[in-house]
Amino acid sequence: MAKKIGVAILGLGVVGGGTYQTIVDHHDFYLKTQRIDLTVEMVLDKSEERLTQLGIPKECWANGIEEVLANPNVDIVVETIGGVGAAKQFVTAALRDGKTVVTSNKELICKYSHELEEIAKRMGCGLYYEASCVGGVPIIRTLLDGVQANKIQTMMGIVNGTTNYILTKMSNEGADYAETLKEAQRLGYAEFDPTNDVEGFDSMYKLSILSSMAFHTKVPYANIFREGISKIEARDIAYGKAQGYTLKLLAIGKQTEKGIEVRVHPTFIHNSHPLASVNDSFNAVYMTGDAVDDIMLYGRGAGALPTASAVVSDIIHAATHSEVKYSTFKNEATAEKGTKFVTDFSSAYYFRLTVEDKLGTLAKLCNMFAKCNVSIVEIVQKPGNETEKAEGKIPLVIITHATAESSMERVVEKIKESDFAAVQTVIRVEA
Amino acid sequence: MAKKIGVAILGLGVVGGGTYQTIVDHHDFYLKTQRIDLTVEMVLDKSEERLTQLGIPKECWANGIEEVLANPNVDIVVETIGGVGAAKQFVTAALRDGKTVVTSNKELICKYSHELEEIAKRMGCGLYYEASCVGGVPIIRTLLDGVQANKIQTMMGIVNGTTNYILTKMSNEGADYAETLKEAQRLGYAEFDPTNDVEGFDSMYKLSILSSMAFHTKVPYANIFREGISKIEARDIAYGKAQGYTLKLLAIGKQTEKGIEVRVHPTFIHNSHPLASVNDSFNAVYMTGDAVDDIMLYGRGAGALPTASAVVSDIIHAATHSEVKYSTFKNEATAEKGTKFVTDFSSAYYFRLTVEDKLGTLAKLCNMFAKCNVSIVEIVQKPGNETEKAEGKIPLVIITHATAESSMERVVEKIKESDFAAVQTVIRVEA
Repeated sequence: MAKKIGVAILGLGVVGGGTYQTIVDHHDFYLKTQRIDLTVEMVLDKSEERLTQLGIPKECWANGIEEVLANPNVDIVVETIGGVGAAKQFVTAALRDGKTVVTSNKELICKYSHELEEIAKRMGCGLYYEASCVGGVPIIRTLLDGVQANKIQTMMGIVNGTTNYILTKMSNEGADYAETLKEAQRLGYAEFDPTNDVEGFDSMYKLSILSSMAFHTKVPYANIFREGISKIEARDIAYGKAQGYTLKLLAIGKQTEKGIEVRVHPTFIHNSHPLASVNDSFNAVYMTGDAVDDIMLYGRGAGALPTASAVVSDIIHAATHSEVKYSTFKNEATAEKGTKFVTDFSSAYYFRLTVEDKLGTLAKLCNMFAKCNVSIVEIVQKPGNETEKAEGKIPLVIITHATAESSMERVVEKIKESDFAAVQTVIRVEA
Repeated sequence: MAKKIGVAILGLGVVGGGTYQTIVDHHDFYLKTQRIDLTVEMVLDKSEERLTQLGIPKECWANGIEEVLANPNVDIVVETIGGVGAAKQFVTAALRDGKTVVTSNKELICKYSHELEEIAKRMGCGLYYEASCVGGVPIIRTLLDGVQANKIQTMMGIVNGTTNYILTKMSNEGADYAETLKEAQRLGYAEFDPTNDVEGFDSMYKLSILSSMAFHTKVPYANIFREGISKIEARDIAYGKAQGYTLKLLAIGKQTEKGIEVRVHPTFIHNSHPLASVNDSFNAVYMTGDAVDDIMLYGRGAGALPTASAVVSDIIHAATHSEVKYSTFKNEATAEKGTKFVTDFSSAYYFRLTVEDKLGTLAKLCNMFAKCNVSIVEIVQKPGNETEKAEGKIPLVIITHATAESSMERVVEKIKESDFAAVQTVIRVEA
C-alpha cells in the first residue's frame, strides 16, 4: 500500500518551481519505487503570474501560511523562499505546528539551526536541508550517513556556482573580473546585486553548515575567515597558471591539533588536484577522513532541477523514515565548550609585487622575506604593463612555503615600509 | 544514554582487520558522536597468527559460527571473508538467527541477494553491503538515499582498483600489460591469480549491484557484457592518448528507450571527462539523473581502512536506525517481468588495423566501413614496428561515430575476408 504524502511549497522561485515540476513529473515513479503517493497540495507565492506560468491548479494556491498549516493534507512543508525574513517566520510556524520541514535555505540553517532544531525536537517533526549546500550533491547525507565512521580531518569545497563560473571564464579567456561578472549577470549565473556570492557570504554559510557536521560541533559563521573574489585580476590567474596552479574560491575546514580552522578565500591549488578541474557552475567537496582517506563529491551546485533533486530526496527520506534525525549540531548556537578556532592559520602564499627595476632589489627583497621567517619556493619576473614600464617598475611573482598568516602579514608590512617594492596581491595557496 | 552494540567479525583479512582496528580506535569517538558504545565481541578466523598480529584478545576468538551466534552480546555480524562458500553459509546462519549482517562481499550480494534479503525480511533484521562496491565511497547510500528522487539514466564507473592501477601505469610509463601486472602483484595491488580483477568479474559483480539499485530492478550478472584488460597493448593506450583519449575499464549502465544496457569493458573516454583523471587505485562513479544532472563520487575503491570506513558506517547506520531498509532488489533473483536488456548496444569504436602499404588501400577500407553503415571520425596512420615494416604493413587507427555493435562486427568480418587488411584491436569509445 502506498503512503499518501502531501507537500506544500513556500516560494516558487527557481528551486521551488523545480521542486514542483519534479514532484509532478515523478508521481508514478515514486509510487512504484518508493511506495509513496506524493502530491503537491498547496503552494504559496506572491506572484500569481509565476503560479500560472508553472501551471499550478488554482485550488492549490494558498492565501497565507495559516491556510497552508490549516490544510490537513499537508504533511511536509518545503521552504524555498530564501533569506531570514518570511522564510524564518514560516519555517518556525510550520515546525511549531508539528510539520516536517524541508528547506534549501543556507542562510536560515547557518544562522538559526539551533532555534529551529530545538522546536523540531520538541514537536517530534523533522528538519531537512540537503538542498542548502552544493545543490543536488548529497553532501549532508554523506556526512551524516556515509562517512560517519570517520574523524574528518580536512574539507575543501567549491560550493558556489557563480564564483566558479566567473573564475573559470576569467581563466579560460583571460577576461577581467568586471566584464566577466557582467556576462554572468546577463546569463543569469549572477544576481543583480552579486555581493552574497562574489564576496563569499554564500560559501561561508555553507561552510558553517558542513563543517559543523564534519567536526561535530557548531561552527558559527562569525568564526569563519572570509574573502571574496572581487579583487582578483586576470593577470594573477594567468601568472598562477604559468606556475601550474588554478584559482578557485575554496571553503576550507580543517580539524588540526590547534583547533578548528575555517576559511573562505580565493585559493591557488595545483592543477593535479581533483578540485582544479571542477569548472563552470559545477561544485565539489573534497574531504579527507582518518579511515576513508580522500573522497570527493562532484555535481551541479545550483539550478532548478539539480537543487530540486536534493529537496525531493529529502522529502522522500522524511516520508519513508519515521525516525527523525536532528541534533546534528546538538541544537547549539555556539561551538561546544572548549572548542578552539585557529585564527593564525598556516598557508602557502602567492605574492604579486611591483619592484624597482634596479640591481640588488631582489636580494633586499629575499632578505626581507627571510627576516620574517617566510621561506620562498619560487620567484618569477614578469613583463610589466604600460604603466609599470613607464614607472620603471617590474612585476614579480613570489610563491612561498607554508607559513603562519601572521608571518605573511609581517612581510606585507615590511614591504609597505620599503621604498623599492609594493605588494599588489596576496593569494593563498593550498598544497 | 549510549546504546551498547556488540559486533562479531568473520574473516580477519585486509578488510576485516581494518574493520577491527577502526572500531577499536574510534570507540570514544562513536560514543560521543553517535551515542553508541560499539565493541568487537567476537572474531572468527582460521589463522591464530593473524588474530595475534592484530592484537585481538583471546577471549574474543570464536571456535566456529555457532559460538558467534550463541553469544548474546553479538548484535551485528560483519562478514569480510569473501567468496560464496563459508561466507554464504555464515551469513545465512546469522540472518536465520535474526542477526543484522554487514558485508563487503560483492560476489555474495550479486549472486544471492534475493535469498539473503528474503531471510532478513522474514527475520526482521538488516542486511547492509555498502563496502561491497567502491570501497569507502558511499555510492549505495547515495543511490538509496541521496539521489532517489531521480530516474538514473546512465552510470559509468571505475570500480576496480587493480585494473585502474595497471592502466594508469601503462599509460604513464608506456609499459606493457604483462610487466605492469607483475609489478602490481609485487606491490600487493593484484592477486596471485588476477583473473577476477583483470577479466572484469569484480567490476561485473559491482555493476550488477549498483545498476539493480539505479534501475530499480534486479540486473543479473548474466545479462552483463564483460571484457577484461588482459589483451590491451601499450601501443593502443599511446595511440588513444594521441587522439585525446584515456583508457579505463568502465562499468557502464544505461537506461535507454530500448531497455537496460549493462557492460564492462576497456573504454576510451575523452581526456576532458572527469573519469579520465581518476588514476591509480582511486575509483569513481559518474552518474546522470533526470533532475540532478551529472554527479560523480570519487575515492579509494579498496584498502583496509577505506573499505572499513564503509563497513563501520553501515554498522553505525544499523545501530542507530531501527527501521530496516531492504527490498532494494525486491528480493528478486531475476529482472522484473517485461524488463528488456539491450545486447546490440550502440558505441563509438577505436580500431587498430594493419594494412598493406599500397596505393588505394585506404579507399577500399573506407568503402568497407561505409558499406557496413559505420561512419568514420578519424583515420591516423602510425609508424610500424620492426615486424610490420618487414612485412610491408602499416598500422592504422580508425575512430568511428557511434554505431551498433552488430555493425562493428560486420566491419570486422568484412576486413577478415579481405586480403589487404587485418583487425588487431577493437576498443569501445564513450563520448
